[in-house]
Amino acid sequence: MTSGLKNDRFIRAIYREPVDYTPIWIMRQAGRYLPEYRAVRAKAGSFMDLCHSADLACEVTLQPLERFDLDAAILFSDILTVPDAMGLGLSFSAGEGPVFARPLRSRSAIEQLPIPDPEGELRYVMDAVSTIRHALDGRVPLIGFSGSPWTLATYMVEGGSTKEFAHIKGLMYSDPTSAHLLLDKLSDAVTDYLNAQVRRGAQALMIFDTWGGVLSPDKYREFSLRYMEKIVSGLIRNHEGQRIPVILFTKGGGQWAQHIADTGADGIGLDWTVDIGQIRQTLGDQVALQGNLDPSVLYATDDIIEQEVARVLASYGHGSGHVFNLGHGIHQHIDPARVETLVNAVHRLSRPYHST
Amino acid sequence: MTSGLKNDRFIRAIYREPVDYTPIWIMRQAGRYLPEYRAVRAKAGSFMDLCHSADLACEVTLQPLERFDLDAAILFSDILTVPDAMGLGLSFSAGEGPVFARPLRSRSAIEQLPIPDPEGELRYVMDAVSTIRHALDGRVPLIGFSGSPWTLATYMVEGGSTKEFAHIKGLMYSDPTSAHLLLDKLSDAVTDYLNAQVRRGAQALMIFDTWGGVLSPDKYREFSLRYMEKIVSGLIRNHEGQRIPVILFTKGGGQWAQHIADTGADGIGLDWTVDIGQIRQTLGDQVALQGNLDPSVLYATDDIIEQEVARVLASYGHGSGHVFNLGHGIHQHIDPARVETLVNAVHRLSRPYHST
Repeated sequence: MTSGLKNDRFIRAIYREPVDYTPIWIMRQAGRYLPEYRAVRAKAGSFMDLCHSADLACEVTLQPLERFDLDAAILFSDILTVPDAMGLGLSFSAGEGPVFARPLRSRSAIEQLPIPDPEGELRYVMDAVSTIRHALDGRVPLIGFSGSPWTLATYMVEGGSTKEFAHIKGLMYSDPTSAHLLLDKLSDAVTDYLNAQVRRGAQALMIFDTWGGVLSPDKYREFSLRYMEKIVSGLIRNHEGQRIPVILFTKGGGQWAQHIADTGADGIGLDWTVDIGQIRQTLGDQVALQGNLDPSVLYATDDIIEQEVARVLASYGHGSGHVFNLGHGIHQHIDPARVETLVNAVHRLSRPYHST
Repeated sequence: MTSGLKNDRFIRAIYREPVDYTPIWIMRQAGRYLPEYRAVRAKAGSFMDLCHSADLACEVTLQPLERFDLDAAILFSDILTVPDAMGLGLSFSAGEGPVFARPLRSRSAIEQLPIPDPEGELRYVMDAVSTIRHALDGRVPLIGFSGSPWTLATYMVEGGSTKEFAHIKGLMYSDPTSAHLLLDKLSDAVTDYLNAQVRRGAQALMIFDTWGGVLSPDKYREFSLRYMEKIVSGLIRNHEGQRIPVILFTKGGGQWAQHIADTGADGIGLDWTVDIGQIRQTLGDQVALQGNLDPSVLYATDDIIEQEVARVLASYGHGSGHVFNLGHGIHQHIDPARVETLVNAVHRLSRPYHST
């Protein structure tokens, strides 16, 4: 038992230590599909107001744990808090996603970009971490997180969401030196940010590389993976006697799993476009694997959900090293009753894979 | 020399016959990045009005050939002409993409779906094929095309574009029998549609599976690839003494290249997230490969474009069997001068790979 944790299956699975069943958490588990989340969100005002309040962030972080037998909690926050703290001016427009008031479009703007102090401009996130950790009281581990440098850079240079990545890829191809300068700064900022989360109580770390998969293989290694590797090597991996595992998740990056594993991360997140069993076969026991049910399966009936859960479990196969998750964040129109089916199915159906 | 063609490099490359340089065409080469296209489009009225006029469709099909030394022409049309002809009522709303007035949401609607007559409701497409083929006068081959059954089904069931694929995946998971019925009908419709294009003058065929990549590996094979295979086996592969090659392109499907090759297609389209040389190594000379430059490279300078072209050519390596293309359609804000750089770079830089 990992000290102080009543349920340490998530941590043990990452280190491929025996568990009685496969642990599960769900990306965006505290989110709009829950009516109680929508109620708090409405009360808070804007999405960022919700992130800024440690008490409200704690409340929504714990909501899914009240409903479902989840094996981890994840800090309620947004990946764009870091660029916001760097002075880009984040807001969320209804229906259009994040918008930066001051997108990065010049070398000098990149040079002037400050590295934010996690206990300064980002103190509200740290306060949320402490509050949540305290409220959890050892029930399950608390996961801290950040966006990857490449993913943060896409939003910072585009000024918001994009389908074509014209500006960031234009920068990458035409002025790689400036792109690297930005990514290097972001690596430092993210390392500080994640380490501060650990000091405040995060018991595991996730780096979300939502947009690494839009790159060609060589550009992925040069502009995304290299910086995640730099972060991994700078993270606190032991804190107050406890191991702090780190999981990297590049959406669409399953084909590069070997390269991702070679960063020294403890776990790799996989989306549903790859066969988790095949990845396990390739990597052996180098890392744990997290995933990888298609989030759309939750639109189906309970029978089908159980069948698809069984398929993922069978694909991974016998033994520890698997953290069940969706292959991407849960969609907002999913019925919470389906999530209960999912969580219980993972626990029940995985037991035979952990018997000795 | 393929009879009647002044430039048959595209056809020869697909059959891995010697060429003096690597042929290139560009997905969406007749499109909004060209000012002369925007002029015709403005004159035509709606996008569908442009598709409905054989003369205007011919005019825009030929526009990029006037500017660039491209090695193939592709029919100007839309993948959604088939569902439109099945009675779903297609329109294009400004900025929001395609919308179907009557999305498919029931088993009975799927059962009642007619297989359109290519020379009936879709005659306007066939007339465009004939007109373009005649106007080309053997300059380069004319590529006909269709969407894949899975890709067409996503639009038909969602009623337009989607990010989450909630309805089509809901159908696929919860009522696979109805999903298969729809996909089977679409396979028949697409086979008829493509064969009619061949009879009217198409000299090669492309099937665009834009959304196959959002599926898990087993669902991809069951719900997308299986139906493309059915189409491939029903296509006219020889017409008036000429071979008619077919190329399958699943965006995000590079990891499944071996399965795609096993359909019996002559070529596989690849996006830029895979290494074309690695795919060639896996498949040997089973099929030709088409691709795979990141379309965003065209935001860069001429030097960088040439460098990235050189990288793709070097990755593919020596010999025939490569049709150069972007890994997806060209973006609308690209400067046509960059496209000229691209086309000329492919021709010039590929010569050493074809010397004996």
